[in-house]
Amino acid sequence: MKKIDIQSAPLSAGSRYPEPFAAPCQNKVRHRLAAAAGLKQIGVNLLDLAPGAWSSQRHWHSQAEEFVYVVEGEVVLVTEGCEEILRAGDCAAFLPGDPDGHHLQNRSGALARIEVGSANMRNDETTYPDVDLRAAASGYFHKDGTPY
Amino acid sequence: MKKIDIQSAPLSAGSRYPEPFAAPCQNKVRHRLAAAAGLKQIGVNLLDLAPGAWSSQRHWHSQAEEFVYVVEGEVVLVTEGCEEILRAGDCAAFLPGDPDGHHLQNRSGALARIEVGSANMRNDETTYPDVDLRAAASGYFHKDGTPY
Repeated sequence: MKKIDIQSAPLSAGSRYPEPFAAPCQNKVRHRLAAAAGLKQIGVNLLDLAPGAWSSQRHWHSQAEEFVYVVEGEVVLVTEGCEEILRAGDCAAFLPGDPDGHHLQNRSGALARIEVGSANMRNDETTYPDVDLRAAASGYFHKDGTPY
Repeated sequence: MKKIDIQSAPLSAGSRYPEPFAAPCQNKVRHRLAAAAGLKQIGVNLLDLAPGAWSSQRHWHSQAEEFVYVVEGEVVLVTEGCEEILRAGDCAAFLPGDPDGHHLQNRSGALARIEVGSANMRNDETTYPDVDLRAAASGYFHKDGTPY
């Protein structure tokens, strides 16, 4: 039996960002599918974004690769000076070291469900170009290195 | 612009297995999404399985992790002594070193589309419990080590 029971997969709700950065990212739930299955190399989450919610603050990774596939609904993929609509069946990928930060916004009136894949998260550092925030394995920091 | 143009992603059609193992796996097409986007750590393919087609011979990996998410249609996930139906929205994962080999069969009358994610394919060896076949980076071999 290899089928994953999505309903019983571990959940991660909301955002752990320091405020005020968490606020727009609170109305979301991640179904942690890879964790449910015991995968170690690939991260796979099913991300449910409520109307109005953001997937994260706009960011880019130093080491990690990311892939998103829209399963249901519609989101706006925001990058530097660019907005693209992703609908069910659309996908996008984000390369480590590319400073063109990204995030997803659900501006629709309906739930959006996105499959989010990642790899190489070890030793990753995350840069947030729009806000005074940096992330590493040890926590969240101001741009000047002061911890939150 | 980070959205992937699925229609222009590189395609890989059919199977490279030696015959007769290729025959049931020929009627399939992989849209190589990760390759289109330049990802190196994650493999992501959109696999279109025609009615009657198998994703592969039943197999397991020594190093690679695999994750499958059914986007459209219905497939049968076959493992050792077990069959499970996966429909759109269902998913499954396969751990390296687990000798309970797996594959997908499209026994329906309609196309099935599956998103297939993988990681850690380097130095992988693939074991096929049902047939006289082994695979490594250097090619396909009989169980006794003789190359095909």
